[in-house]
Amino acid sequence: MVPHLTTALTGPLLELEQHILDAQPQIEHWFRTQWQDHAAPFYASVDLRNSGFKLAPVDTNLFPGGFNNLNRDFTPLCVQAAMSAVEKVCPVAQRFLLIPENHTRNIYYLQNVAALASILRHAGLQVRIGSLLPEITAPTTLDLPDGSTLTLEPLKREGDRLKLDGFDPCAILLNNDLSAGIPDILKDLDQPVIPPLHAGWSTRRKSDHFGKYDRVAEEFARLLHIDPWLINPMFATCGQINFQERQGEECLAAHVDDLLKDIREKYQEYGVNEDPFVIVKADAGTYGMGIMTVKDASEVRDLNRKQRNKMAVGKEGMAVTDVIIQEGVYTFESLADAVAEPVVYMMDHFVVGGFYRVHTSRGKDENLNAPGMRFEPLAFETALTLPDCAAAPDAEPNRFYAYGVVARLALLAAAMELENLAP
Amino acid sequence: MVPHLTTALTGPLLELEQHILDAQPQIEHWFRTQWQDHAAPFYASVDLRNSGFKLAPVDTNLFPGGFNNLNRDFTPLCVQAAMSAVEKVCPVAQRFLLIPENHTRNIYYLQNVAALASILRHAGLQVRIGSLLPEITAPTTLDLPDGSTLTLEPLKREGDRLKLDGFDPCAILLNNDLSAGIPDILKDLDQPVIPPLHAGWSTRRKSDHFGKYDRVAEEFARLLHIDPWLINPMFATCGQINFQERQGEECLAAHVDDLLKDIREKYQEYGVNEDPFVIVKADAGTYGMGIMTVKDASEVRDLNRKQRNKMAVGKEGMAVTDVIIQEGVYTFESLADAVAEPVVYMMDHFVVGGFYRVHTSRGKDENLNAPGMRFEPLAFETALTLPDCAAAPDAEPNRFYAYGVVARLALLAAAMELENLAP
Repeated sequence: MVPHLTTALTGPLLELEQHILDAQPQIEHWFRTQWQDHAAPFYASVDLRNSGFKLAPVDTNLFPGGFNNLNRDFTPLCVQAAMSAVEKVCPVAQRFLLIPENHTRNIYYLQNVAALASILRHAGLQVRIGSLLPEITAPTTLDLPDGSTLTLEPLKREGDRLKLDGFDPCAILLNNDLSAGIPDILKDLDQPVIPPLHAGWSTRRKSDHFGKYDRVAEEFARLLHIDPWLINPMFATCGQINFQERQGEECLAAHVDDLLKDIREKYQEYGVNEDPFVIVKADAGTYGMGIMTVKDASEVRDLNRKQRNKMAVGKEGMAVTDVIIQEGVYTFESLADAVAEPVVYMMDHFVVGGFYRVHTSRGKDENLNAPGMRFEPLAFETALTLPDCAAAPDAEPNRFYAYGVVARLALLAAAMELENLAP
Repeated sequence: MVPHLTTALTGPLLELEQHILDAQPQIEHWFRTQWQDHAAPFYASVDLRNSGFKLAPVDTNLFPGGFNNLNRDFTPLCVQAAMSAVEKVCPVAQRFLLIPENHTRNIYYLQNVAALASILRHAGLQVRIGSLLPEITAPTTLDLPDGSTLTLEPLKREGDRLKLDGFDPCAILLNNDLSAGIPDILKDLDQPVIPPLHAGWSTRRKSDHFGKYDRVAEEFARLLHIDPWLINPMFATCGQINFQERQGEECLAAHVDDLLKDIREKYQEYGVNEDPFVIVKADAGTYGMGIMTVKDASEVRDLNRKQRNKMAVGKEGMAVTDVIIQEGVYTFESLADAVAEPVVYMMDHFVVGGFYRVHTSRGKDENLNAPGMRFEPLAFETALTLPDCAAAPDAEPNRFYAYGVVARLALLAAAMELENLAP
C-alpha cells in the first residue's frame, strides 16, 4: 500500500482501468509481439499524469536519474531486468563504464548513480564511473548521506577506446542525456555505447517521440476498443522560435489556440468541467527548463522579458529554437494537499518500479519536474505487474498495472524513435 | 532475515562462499556466455545440501511442485522471469494449457498448481488446467485452503491438437513429470509442449544429469580455482537390478564400497570427522520413492523383504531396474533441532526464490523428500541475487547468493542434458 495516497477519481478513468484489466492477456501478448520487432531501450523512465479521466505519458527519459527513489524491495526486480538488458545489448561484457551527468554537488543525483551502479554490480558487472567534467583530473571520492562513497574518475581516450586508469571497459553506459551535444571523446568509439549516442537530447526531439507515441496509442486503442485520446496527449510544434527576438510568437499563439480548442471539444465530449491548458516546452531538452503552463494564446503573445529569458534557454544553456506545445493533463492524484505525479521505471522491457513526485507548492496543472524544484519521492510500495482481477479497478495493484501498461506504451514509442534515429 | 535458521558451519564452506562472492562478476559473466549457448529449461527446482564443508545439488526437478512455498514478496520476480521464459519458448502464445500431476487430494500440490497458474496469468497468459486423470470427465472444481478454487478439466484430443472444451491452447505446460510414461494423448502434438516430453522421467536419468553436472562443475571449479568436489557429489550407477529377485546386489555392493572409499579419502583430505554415506535411489524417478541411506556395503547385501519391496517400486508403481549410487551430503543446516534442506526455484535462467524443507523427525544424513513425509516449508526471506560484499560470507544474502549459483550450475547441466535427449 502506498500510504495516504488518494486519487480524486471520476468515471472515465475507472472505465479505462477496467478495460486495461479485462484485456490483460491481450495486452501482454501484444507487448510480447511488439518486443519481438522492436528492441527496448536499455532503461527508461516515464512521467505519467493521471487526471481521473485520462492517463497519459508526458515525458520519456532515456537516461533515468531516480533509481535511488525506487522501493528497495524492488531491487531484485531491477537486478533481474538488468541481467536481461545486458544479455540483449552486450552479453559478453564484464566491465561497464558508467558516465553520469556533470553534477558533483547534486546529492540526489549522485545517490541515483550509486543505486544504478549497485544494480549493475549485482547483475554481475564490474562498474566504474567516468566523468566528462574537465575538473575531474584524478579519482575524486564523494561522500553520500548513507555513509557510502562514489568515486568519479577521469576519462582517458586511447585510440578508439575509452578507458579509465587500469580499466578497459567492454561497454559504455550513459546516464548523461547529452543535452550539451555529443562530446568528441564519445565519438567513434570501438566499444558499444548504451543507450546509443543518438538517444541523447542533441538528437532526440520530444515531437518525434510523441509522433511515434501517436501510432502506438492508435494501435493499442484499437486493441482495447477505446478512444486513443484517453491515453494520448495531443501536441503541435513550432520551429524557428527566438523568444528574445520575439520571433515565432504568432506560430506559437496559433498552435496554442488550436490545441486549446481541440482539448475543449474533448472535454465537452467527456463532460469534463476543467479549464483546458497546454504546456509549452523545448522540443529538445529535459529537466523542465523553459516550461510554461498556458491557458490562453494571449499569454504567449505578452511574455515579459523575464519570461522570455526563461524560455529562451534550456539545460546546459542551450538556446531553445524548437518548442512542443502539448496538451496539459491535470494530475488529480494527491498526497494530503500535495500534488503527486507517478514516474515509472523500466529496464529492458520490464517495469521495475516507480515513485510519486510529490510537491506541495505546485498546482495540479503545473510541471512537477522543474529546475531547482525539490520533490518528495514516494516509492511505489507494490509491484506494477500484479493486477488483482478480483479487486476494484482503482485498487492499488490495478492502478499500478495500468501505470505500467501506459509507461510501456511510451517505452515502445521510444524504441521506434531510436530505430528511426539510428545512423 | 530467515528467522531462527542456524547453520553449523565449519571452515571450508566459508572459504567456498568467499570464493563465490569474490568471483561474482566472473561468475555472472560466465553464466551469461553459457546461456548464449544453452537454452535454460522453462522452470526447475534444485534440492541443495549444505554440509558446512560442501555445497552441492542432489536433485534437479524439471516439473517443480512447490511454487506455493515461495515467499509471496518474490511473486513479481517470478512473473518477470515467466515473461522471459514465455518470450523465449513461445512468444506468440496467448493461451497455456497446464497439465498437473494426477493428484486431486494432495492439497499442498494443488496449491502449487494454483500458485503457478497465478504467476502465468500475471505474466499475461490465459491459463486453464487439464487433467490426465480418466475420472475427470467434466470440469471439477476443488476448494483450496485460502478460499480460492482450482478447476480441473478433461483433455480433448482433436487431430494433432490438445484442447479443453472451448479452449484451444497455443502451448501445453507440463507440471507432470511423466513418471508413468508418456500418455498417448500427449504424443505428436501440433502445439509446443513445455518442457519437452523428453524432459519427463520416462526418458531422463539422474545419472545423465549428474554426468553433465560433472562437466559443468569441472569448468566452474576451474574458473574459481577450487576443487570441484566441493560442489559436486560423486556417483555411480548399476543397471539390471531386480531387488525382488536379488539380482544385481553384488554390482550395487561393489559400487557402494568404492564410493564410500572415495568419500572417506576426501573426508581425510579435508579433515572431516563424519561417517561417509551414500544414497541409493532409482535412476529414473522422483518423489523420493525407493531411497536408501547406506553407510556400509553389507547393508545392500542383506536387505530384508520389506526393504526390497520398498526399493523395487518407484512412483506410479514403475519397477526400478536402474539405480544411482550418490555420495551422501550431510545437511548441517537446522532450524532449532530440525534438519533443513534448501530448495532453489528458477524460471528461465533466473533464480526466483526458494525455501527450506524442514523436518524434525529426519536425520542430517537422510533424504527429506520422502513419500508421505510432511515437511514444513520455510520461504527464503531475501532474494538470492543480492550478495553483500561488505558482509561476512555466511551472512544470509551471501549464503543465498551461493545457493543461487550452485542451483544454476545444476540448471545448466539440465539444459545440456535436454539438448542431448532431444529427438
